[in-house]
Amino acid sequence: MKNRPFILVPGPSALYFTVEDHLKEALALQVPSISHRSEFYTEIHRETVSNIRKLLNIPSDFHVFFTGSATEVWERIAQNLIIAKSGHVVNGAFSKKNFEAAKAMGVDAHKIEAVEGDLPNVTAESFPKDIEVLNFTHNETSTGVMTPMDNIREARNLYPDAIISLDVVSSAPYVDIDFEAVDTAYFSVQKCFGLPAGLGVWIVNDRCVQKAKEKSQAGHSLGSYHSIPSLLKMAVKDQTPETPNVLGVYLLGKVAGDMLNKGLDVLRRETIYKSTVLYETLKKHPSLSPLAEKEELQSKTVVVAKCEGGSERFLKALAEKGLQPGSGYGGAKNTQIRIANFPTHSKELIEMLSDELMKID
Amino acid sequence: MKNRPFILVPGPSALYFTVEDHLKEALALQVPSISHRSEFYTEIHRETVSNIRKLLNIPSDFHVFFTGSATEVWERIAQNLIIAKSGHVVNGAFSKKNFEAAKAMGVDAHKIEAVEGDLPNVTAESFPKDIEVLNFTHNETSTGVMTPMDNIREARNLYPDAIISLDVVSSAPYVDIDFEAVDTAYFSVQKCFGLPAGLGVWIVNDRCVQKAKEKSQAGHSLGSYHSIPSLLKMAVKDQTPETPNVLGVYLLGKVAGDMLNKGLDVLRRETIYKSTVLYETLKKHPSLSPLAEKEELQSKTVVVAKCEGGSERFLKALAEKGLQPGSGYGGAKNTQIRIANFPTHSKELIEMLSDELMKID
Repeated sequence: MKNRPFILVPGPSALYFTVEDHLKEALALQVPSISHRSEFYTEIHRETVSNIRKLLNIPSDFHVFFTGSATEVWERIAQNLIIAKSGHVVNGAFSKKNFEAAKAMGVDAHKIEAVEGDLPNVTAESFPKDIEVLNFTHNETSTGVMTPMDNIREARNLYPDAIISLDVVSSAPYVDIDFEAVDTAYFSVQKCFGLPAGLGVWIVNDRCVQKAKEKSQAGHSLGSYHSIPSLLKMAVKDQTPETPNVLGVYLLGKVAGDMLNKGLDVLRRETIYKSTVLYETLKKHPSLSPLAEKEELQSKTVVVAKCEGGSERFLKALAEKGLQPGSGYGGAKNTQIRIANFPTHSKELIEMLSDELMKID
Repeated sequence: MKNRPFILVPGPSALYFTVEDHLKEALALQVPSISHRSEFYTEIHRETVSNIRKLLNIPSDFHVFFTGSATEVWERIAQNLIIAKSGHVVNGAFSKKNFEAAKAMGVDAHKIEAVEGDLPNVTAESFPKDIEVLNFTHNETSTGVMTPMDNIREARNLYPDAIISLDVVSSAPYVDIDFEAVDTAYFSVQKCFGLPAGLGVWIVNDRCVQKAKEKSQAGHSLGSYHSIPSLLKMAVKDQTPETPNVLGVYLLGKVAGDMLNKGLDVLRRETIYKSTVLYETLKKHPSLSPLAEKEELQSKTVVVAKCEGGSERFLKALAEKGLQPGSGYGGAKNTQIRIANFPTHSKELIEMLSDELMKID
């Protein structure tokens, strides 16, 4: 670890460039030592929630909760919003893990699945009519497939009684969530927000609150500390049920504030520009091609490339230049590379990465 | 927040004095940006678990898992280790919250309760014979009552079929856990370890692993990502099911290492010395007295004092000297003070606090 490489892995990735300064300020203010029941904490909580609301354009009938991770939210959705049945649009490892989490929670979970790099088509026959939650993964971090918001709007019309759940783990705040078509969404902070892992954000509307109430009234458990009623009871006081990751909540608020100051339109334009550079490179390169072949499905935040002849020579040559993208996910470890195109990754960095990719046969 | 006060609240408290340096080193090593599936992460994980094992003298048939908080562990215990019934020794707000978490999870939870500042006596009649887990809170952070390890050994003999669970949230690593009498224990890192909140440590033995298996085989859900089988499957690879609080895991390992270097015997002797100074002060003071009247129950890590005439004048006078203990818990907010006596709180600081307390009528 002598030289600090540029980390472009779409897991935890490079920190957003302002994080170190905010961390210093947090230590000066003793943020990690304050009581989570203090006035100071509620100020931090309020600012963070307010910035997230502005950044994601969240309507007022939605609530913002903090969890330990987005993975936790899969379990919370099963616990709070599903009595019997769920539907899952599966197009990669993470949407599949969500499906499996529901099954592990005892849910009668139904899935439709696409071939790698594509999206399954949701029709009126895809799921039982009485699924209670329909799960979408907006951006599949394993395959680099981004679901068009129109697909979600269509599914809303086909399954009007289902709560629509949207995993925006690796696309918020780039994604422009249509909150008319979505009832709950969630993300973790170590992707596009460029923050240390250990914090998830869960957004739910009043329909979810109502559904949790009904489930509870029907005699089912909603879990304990992170049930929707427990979270809501504390959220209205700008607090959390347990001692939260206070430092994480603070840093998220600050980075969200920085992104608001920069302007979300600028952030989105830059993301599109950088992704265009990357996809152009894949188009020109003799042995690289996007895993998502259909242009309208190509993720703007996680670019996944198939590597003819294997990924090793790419990862090795890039490492020598101090560039560290991710390897392919799971079984594709040695045949694909995954490039995070997050707000902290500069245009210059992505251009350099593209140039270096072109030098590799 | 102009002057940095000495924080002695038994919630999140002052950081352990080495944390800022470790944080700087972590940033230099890009710890927040590494993949949780990388070799570097497994090294961090292995070192942290190894240091925690040494520090708490954990036998080899126990496993060490990471969660989001100790509050989460209450739910995990209900999910994984209880099919029907639990027993709870309640002597304050946190042991009661644990009892309530079990009830919220649908468990037939039974409790015995003590008057504030005391401990209930566990007898053969306290609980149904077939409770599956018997929950103790070693150190009640709300009342400053520490349960003698002999009580737990006696309960083990009375309820040999029950898994004995020990909450050591605000006493680890001071507490010398008798792992012959305890099957599972857990803590969070923002108390005695002096770390930023957002990480829990859950220790379980093979009896717990076996019980989870039985519960699963009987057709019950164990939850999803943080079920014991999921946690164990990844723990043997020095990993976690989800992206964990990587920075928190790193810092915990470093601070545990510092405590090992200092020597646990030294740390314990200092803790006892400082608590003696505090209890002597309460004895001498005309309007302060320990909430835990019985000497053998007086906590060594959280000293709770009743304040004749209210706590406000104490908190105010101490604040002027830059000293910030906690107020009483819940309903005792205005009548008690709670003083954290954690490893980061120096002898000099505690002596100064005692001197200042004596100056207040």
